[in-house]
Amino acid sequence: MSTSPRLVTLPDIERAAESIAATCLRTPVVPLVREDGQIPLWLKAESLQPTGAFKLRGATYAIARLDAAERRRGVVSHSSGNHAQAVAYAARVAGVRATIVIPDTAPSLKVEATRRWGAEIVVVPPADRLACAEKIAAETGAVLIPPYDDREVIAGQGTVGLEIAEQVPDLGTVLVPVSGGGLVSGTAAAVKALRPDVRVVAVEPELAGDLAEGWAAGERRVWSVADTSRTVADGLRTDSVGVLNWAHIQAFVDDVVTVTEEEILAATGEIVRGARFVVEPSGAVAAAAVLAGTVAPTGGTTVAIASGGNVAPETLARVLV
Amino acid sequence: MSTSPRLVTLPDIERAAESIAATCLRTPVVPLVREDGQIPLWLKAESLQPTGAFKLRGATYAIARLDAAERRRGVVSHSSGNHAQAVAYAARVAGVRATIVIPDTAPSLKVEATRRWGAEIVVVPPADRLACAEKIAAETGAVLIPPYDDREVIAGQGTVGLEIAEQVPDLGTVLVPVSGGGLVSGTAAAVKALRPDVRVVAVEPELAGDLAEGWAAGERRVWSVADTSRTVADGLRTDSVGVLNWAHIQAFVDDVVTVTEEEILAATGEIVRGARFVVEPSGAVAAAAVLAGTVAPTGGTTVAIASGGNVAPETLARVLV
Repeated sequence: MSTSPRLVTLPDIERAAESIAATCLRTPVVPLVREDGQIPLWLKAESLQPTGAFKLRGATYAIARLDAAERRRGVVSHSSGNHAQAVAYAARVAGVRATIVIPDTAPSLKVEATRRWGAEIVVVPPADRLACAEKIAAETGAVLIPPYDDREVIAGQGTVGLEIAEQVPDLGTVLVPVSGGGLVSGTAAAVKALRPDVRVVAVEPELAGDLAEGWAAGERRVWSVADTSRTVADGLRTDSVGVLNWAHIQAFVDDVVTVTEEEILAATGEIVRGARFVVEPSGAVAAAAVLAGTVAPTGGTTVAIASGGNVAPETLARVLV
Repeated sequence: MSTSPRLVTLPDIERAAESIAATCLRTPVVPLVREDGQIPLWLKAESLQPTGAFKLRGATYAIARLDAAERRRGVVSHSSGNHAQAVAYAARVAGVRATIVIPDTAPSLKVEATRRWGAEIVVVPPADRLACAEKIAAETGAVLIPPYDDREVIAGQGTVGLEIAEQVPDLGTVLVPVSGGGLVSGTAAAVKALRPDVRVVAVEPELAGDLAEGWAAGERRVWSVADTSRTVADGLRTDSVGVLNWAHIQAFVDDVVTVTEEEILAATGEIVRGARFVVEPSGAVAAAAVLAGTVAPTGGTTVAIASGGNVAPETLARVLV
């Protein structure tokens, strides 16, 4: 397709912000204090959302936009974890029935956390998840809530960027973890509309570096799930960014970098010790780029989005000591 | 003394809120989600302050109120940990020299964390700390910043209550941990001024239950430090509430309850797993009263103040699994 897709705008994101305010937390931007008292960066603490990740924003907004007939038919979605929980929770708050298709490789912690919000769960092999969700949508009339390649979802995730711009007057750099690209699309759109001079950097695990490869090549790349599944960052294993997301990234992102598994785990421990909230490895990826020295600070405050905190207690205990 | 002391008022606390806004975080109120999806209470996440505890509020305000001559002479304080860090950090931000007297029983994590903010540290036996701080004040002209028995400090800590009242429209109960009583005094004063019908409950470790005993007896009680030091909640080992604090508690608090060591440690783990931020045992004491069933919910939302998160990583790892 050669026509450019219409990108999400600041007014779209502002509408989303108003719509989700009663369900989603306005999360704080918290300093990461190193042992010597230095503060190399601040963290947007999305782990504190009721479902433990930023995904609640997009899911809440997508469900808020349904009309009465759609609400009666319910929603369906597919996700490795955090989007699943988000759709289940947002649907429950909105009084809408939800079915979630989960790949059989998803961490059991995230599966159980989805079940508790009352959603119906269907477990399938990773490669079948989209087809299965589409089949359920076709058969039951349920509305598919896509995890990232969707204007409403992007606008919802973009409220993270809106809040950061409001919360940090001297913002210099925003770092955003990337999987399908919903968070980086919306965040970059909001930040660049409000503060064109702020640098927006997308960060990926090296082992799921499809966007970094595509960024260097100048065209969207798709990796195998077998490859992206190697990373410990289980929330960032999507095989490529979405089509709409790629367009946003090209329009609004300044750079794409990758971090190693070792850097991700070190950052996970450092955030829990130095900023005193819980992150899962995926949630530490953006900060890892600064802590490992991959992204150098420029003028102004550096903020990394700590995208989620759904991690097994045993894993957390291991990175702590 | 039979004359009643003048209590801190809502305008005092509102002035403090304006004064500390640039240094202290407006912390979020975060849901504690149990494994079955129930949310028994919400937590005011003071662990996220730059020094990891609410103490930064009172220290920042007390230092902001110094005049130019006092600022030049510097400040001195005594504390087992979180107030020490708070004074050191607030003094550094304000460009004021700080000396902190620390009891030799304080956790080394808290001592190191104080040192990194550039304060001068003096270590003494617990019983000598007030005398030592007063001696330094007398000899150097430094201004003593008391940990709790002080109008400015109470007004600063009261901003926690002000924020809770603003953040939670249907507030029913606020639970506050007690040691010297600074936090409960200010929080209760703010909450009762704004919402007289909201219940304010003070919570102590049973092993440092001087206030619970005094509350039952109708007069302030002092315990031995040997007794209060038995609790794992190392931030709550003060031997009694302050005189001014006792007056606030009598005026504004509805009930005082205690929790066991086992309940404190269970709540610590449950908060980290279910609300995804770090608390030290002292910071879990207020929530423990609800989680253990000691305080039953009434109408409206229940909020417990999670007062701090300065805990050794090894201790945290132990309560997690």
